[in-house]
Amino acid sequence: MTSREKHDRMANAIRFLSMDAVEKANSGHPGLPMGAADIATVLYTRFMKHDPKAPHWADRDRFVLSAGHGSMLLYSLLYLTGYEDITLDEIKNFRQLGSRTAGHPEYGHAAGIETTTGPLGQGLANSVGMALAERIMNAKFGDDLVDHYTYVLSGDGCLMEGISQEAIALAGHLKLNKLIVMWDDNNISIDGAVSLSDSTDQLARFAASGWNASRVDGHDPEAIADALEAARRSDRPTLIACKTTIGFGAPHKAGTNKAHGSPLGAEEIAGARKALGWDYPPFEVPSDILDAWRLSGLNAAKKRKEWETRLAAAESEIRAEFERRMRGELPGNFDTVIADYKKKLAADKPKVATRKSSEMALEVINGAVPETIGGSADLTGSNNTKTSQTNPIAPGQYDGRYVYYGIREHGMAAAMNGMALHGGVIPYSGTFLTFSDYARPAMRLASLMGIRVIFVMTHDSIGLGEDGPTHQPVEHLAALRAIPNHNVYRPADATESAECWQLALEDTKTPSTIALTRQNLPAVRTEFVEENLCGYGAYELATADGDAAVTIFASGSEVEIALAARTALQAHGHPTRVVSVPVFELFEKQSEKYQAAIIGNAPVKIAIEAAIRLGWDRFIGQDGIFIGMHGFGASGTIEQLYPHFGITADATVKAAEARLHKKSN
Amino acid sequence: MTSREKHDRMANAIRFLSMDAVEKANSGHPGLPMGAADIATVLYTRFMKHDPKAPHWADRDRFVLSAGHGSMLLYSLLYLTGYEDITLDEIKNFRQLGSRTAGHPEYGHAAGIETTTGPLGQGLANSVGMALAERIMNAKFGDDLVDHYTYVLSGDGCLMEGISQEAIALAGHLKLNKLIVMWDDNNISIDGAVSLSDSTDQLARFAASGWNASRVDGHDPEAIADALEAARRSDRPTLIACKTTIGFGAPHKAGTNKAHGSPLGAEEIAGARKALGWDYPPFEVPSDILDAWRLSGLNAAKKRKEWETRLAAAESEIRAEFERRMRGELPGNFDTVIADYKKKLAADKPKVATRKSSEMALEVINGAVPETIGGSADLTGSNNTKTSQTNPIAPGQYDGRYVYYGIREHGMAAAMNGMALHGGVIPYSGTFLTFSDYARPAMRLASLMGIRVIFVMTHDSIGLGEDGPTHQPVEHLAALRAIPNHNVYRPADATESAECWQLALEDTKTPSTIALTRQNLPAVRTEFVEENLCGYGAYELATADGDAAVTIFASGSEVEIALAARTALQAHGHPTRVVSVPVFELFEKQSEKYQAAIIGNAPVKIAIEAAIRLGWDRFIGQDGIFIGMHGFGASGTIEQLYPHFGITADATVKAAEARLHKKSN
Repeated sequence: MTSREKHDRMANAIRFLSMDAVEKANSGHPGLPMGAADIATVLYTRFMKHDPKAPHWADRDRFVLSAGHGSMLLYSLLYLTGYEDITLDEIKNFRQLGSRTAGHPEYGHAAGIETTTGPLGQGLANSVGMALAERIMNAKFGDDLVDHYTYVLSGDGCLMEGISQEAIALAGHLKLNKLIVMWDDNNISIDGAVSLSDSTDQLARFAASGWNASRVDGHDPEAIADALEAARRSDRPTLIACKTTIGFGAPHKAGTNKAHGSPLGAEEIAGARKALGWDYPPFEVPSDILDAWRLSGLNAAKKRKEWETRLAAAESEIRAEFERRMRGELPGNFDTVIADYKKKLAADKPKVATRKSSEMALEVINGAVPETIGGSADLTGSNNTKTSQTNPIAPGQYDGRYVYYGIREHGMAAAMNGMALHGGVIPYSGTFLTFSDYARPAMRLASLMGIRVIFVMTHDSIGLGEDGPTHQPVEHLAALRAIPNHNVYRPADATESAECWQLALEDTKTPSTIALTRQNLPAVRTEFVEENLCGYGAYELATADGDAAVTIFASGSEVEIALAARTALQAHGHPTRVVSVPVFELFEKQSEKYQAAIIGNAPVKIAIEAAIRLGWDRFIGQDGIFIGMHGFGASGTIEQLYPHFGITADATVKAAEARLHKKSN
Repeated sequence: MTSREKHDRMANAIRFLSMDAVEKANSGHPGLPMGAADIATVLYTRFMKHDPKAPHWADRDRFVLSAGHGSMLLYSLLYLTGYEDITLDEIKNFRQLGSRTAGHPEYGHAAGIETTTGPLGQGLANSVGMALAERIMNAKFGDDLVDHYTYVLSGDGCLMEGISQEAIALAGHLKLNKLIVMWDDNNISIDGAVSLSDSTDQLARFAASGWNASRVDGHDPEAIADALEAARRSDRPTLIACKTTIGFGAPHKAGTNKAHGSPLGAEEIAGARKALGWDYPPFEVPSDILDAWRLSGLNAAKKRKEWETRLAAAESEIRAEFERRMRGELPGNFDTVIADYKKKLAADKPKVATRKSSEMALEVINGAVPETIGGSADLTGSNNTKTSQTNPIAPGQYDGRYVYYGIREHGMAAAMNGMALHGGVIPYSGTFLTFSDYARPAMRLASLMGIRVIFVMTHDSIGLGEDGPTHQPVEHLAALRAIPNHNVYRPADATESAECWQLALEDTKTPSTIALTRQNLPAVRTEFVEENLCGYGAYELATADGDAAVTIFASGSEVEIALAARTALQAHGHPTRVVSVPVFELFEKQSEKYQAAIIGNAPVKIAIEAAIRLGWDRFIGQDGIFIGMHGFGASGTIEQLYPHFGITADATVKAAEARLHKKSN
């Protein structure tokens, strides 16, 4: 067998596992794995630095299947190279409930799946974050410990999605030369030929963003290998356009959209077996080919052992720090640092915007936690995300801790996902809350994957004033709270800001959004409490003088209004308690008893939030009074807007008293 | 005064109105209007075909200020050229509550504001839809009635946002040669120099997408004019990179990010007055310059009158059709067509997926309403948005009615907004519901503007099966219902599908999302009712046999489950009614009496929706039983998933009976 014959048979193993699994599942996408099998075979047998026996090895190369619908390509590679998590049975259970081989690659289902993909463009943008994290960690720990590539397989769809432009522009700007994207250039999309909807010269487009870009025959292993060699030597990120035939080997469907997203059918698969000379029953890989694949899985075992030797030989402090970071653990003194800072706040009682108190908290945190990497989508001075410790990261200069992401919310969020997935860094970055909409697909994936990414979202209500309804979030808090496994924090003052940051950093399995004001707010927490009260999700901030007639629930900037309303109501003889609700999601995790006590039995329940009511019925019931927004905001000063929309202590008092009056009649 | 001097003084009028208005408001963005004043002056005095006295003239050129933060540029132009809506008082009330001169341009606040901008990239993407609608209308009504340009002023931010790539790729592909984008290339973003975050060669990037691209000095009126002349003759869309100085004229802040987003301050403005030789008090435009501007506003009055003559001379049927379309009115027989179709459905009782019954409804609608323009983000066969009448629109061929938008949900949604804003067409297009996240910023703007755009969102739950949690929406219904002025329809069968389409088409001031299943559903409406029951938002689909012990509320695919549970519960002696809830938003518009009657007094209230609970407390209360999703979905067959997540008639019956038992104890 010539080496070309061996390559072909190894690639065909991917093709038939994919065809067979899709056929058995009666669902899935055979076209991509068949078309990209040659690319993947060259990459995994000749280049990938990975060790199936130690799949979490920190210095492994990352492979991202951005075209996630081609999941059988990845599952085939993991099975063939010997990842324990992906057995032949898993392949046979493709797309069945409870299998590790889900319809799209799901992070956490199996080692070797570096990120969840499927929503197009996300993997490509994740990879920018991974490649950036690699450089950041390299700048800190050196070539001995951190020196690996990020490889991506991208489809046409990934390149059509707008997020791809944000990703490639950022990667090109930052000269992330260890990022290598292989584009499965097969001219086919679901609707038919790509030419139905696109005429882009992708090579010219990538070149315009500072990338190397080359073109190869995606079925010529030597050409692919040469292009990868060149890419690895490049001082810029590289796009390799690999011209392929979708569904390669299928006698009638190859090269057409019929191979894309449905089982080929028994007849077509039989034809492919004949055409490719593959005389084996479904799911059988002949032992010589499986052996060859498994052998390739050992390629980097020696490198891994050498790396472990180097790590063991490193200074103990460096080693400990590297390992701590990769485990995702915070420094041991973190709690003390926060407690000391809260003591200071209780003494100072600063009256500042929460975007400012977030910055103050970050100043403390960034001093104590060296792995935080800040940033902003071109709103640094508005998001207050940059602190004294965070020098900029710039092209070729990766020893900083701050990323100027540009006006690229979506790419930023997805890059942060990639950084968190890579490990060793904790990404946080900002934009305006209203523009969380731009980043939402990536924020959802952070939640689905369960990773620690912190989205700083300032200008969190009509309180931002004159910029008007395009910039004023009203539905965004509810819409973000709707995402499963996503903690939405809305602190009311500097102490709550510190507590919310603490919680966001400590939760390694849940991404966080921290919603912050533009306007100044008084301190509502005026005494030092070591315990993190925000950790309860909702807690009693002010008790009623007597049996509560009224309970007011509020978050963020409206807690101040709740407290003022309480003072007035109590002066009128209506005992009133105030519950601060900084984070709905953590309240749901408390005991039923705690929840019932917090909600309480006051005859009148009111919620105040400068946003829509959706979600607040959980606290106040259908019958409760909601003081907030009922539609879009408006352009005007903050002094005009709060009264205009009836979000005032006066309005709260009036509504409460009208209800008390009604109830007493 | 030379013509250059005159130009300079006219441009300076924009500069000082902008500086003065921002200064008085103590808020706003002077830098862009000052930097782009020369570009705008050339465009409006020499090229724009518009008539301030007839601002809604159908054949006017459209101008889109994509960099919406520079709103004072647009307001200045509208005031100076003589638009009645924008008086000097409005300029003086810039950014104040109730003024027409909001912080960002708000569609509907004043004639001449063609779209709401501010969220970056949206205007650019709207303009693609406007330019496409122009070509579509031209193909139908000819050069005599439709022949105008779409001009855009874009900033760096617009070009960094990913949506810009989707927009320019689509425009380049479709060869929308009457689209001309002027890029205010000032090298400055909020954080500082653009070089902090970007190194893109924008000309090369646009050229890669099939655009002409040229570069001019943005302060040289003749160069700008020459470039515009060339652009107007082009067979492709054109980018003109206009190198400008942000805050042009400000002695110390020009060319820096200090001119971008805050008032310049009295001293700097005084310096600018000196530097530009502008010896007038704030808000005063010398009469010769105002006269010159007003005169330019009359440039196209003759063309407008000639156009009106041509329209008057057109065949009466053509004229009536043109005017009907531009008014946004549906054909007179539309209701009859729908009623006839509903009669047929009541007889046929088709058991099909709602994506299929949506297609059936569209087949009827597209036959009766010739102005609908369909499309899909590369999911035509899955979204079922193409009918027999809708031939494809292709490069240079605009007589079709179907757009292959490519894998560009965001650009698609924004282009649809632009089409609706242009008028004469009704855009609808599809993707999967989970990918509404990608389109969300544009969907929000459709709601804010109050325009008729119809988003077809199929694969609306775990019912899509094996594609898994990335593709299974769980929070999207709630998140879309959260957007003000956005109707989210979720029909339960073919009749409801028809009714929802009717409502979506008839509501000219509210965009719609129609959520549709992949899986087949039985007919739940089996008798013909002429009235559109979905128009109530929620209605009693099945009464209880006796005093209701249980009310089950459900939407879409879960209505079937509700009916099965009702049958079982009634067999067990528990009278049960079922309320179908196809659209929350319209239910809220019903009388309190109607709402109370629909919610009713059954001791047990249950809601079933294969999505999260958020929003359903409105129907069932805090105490109600919710049968639905509590987190992300999973990859598996539909037969596995519904039982796995406990969304079955059995589970509903069990939960109801447990509650009834508890209540009776």
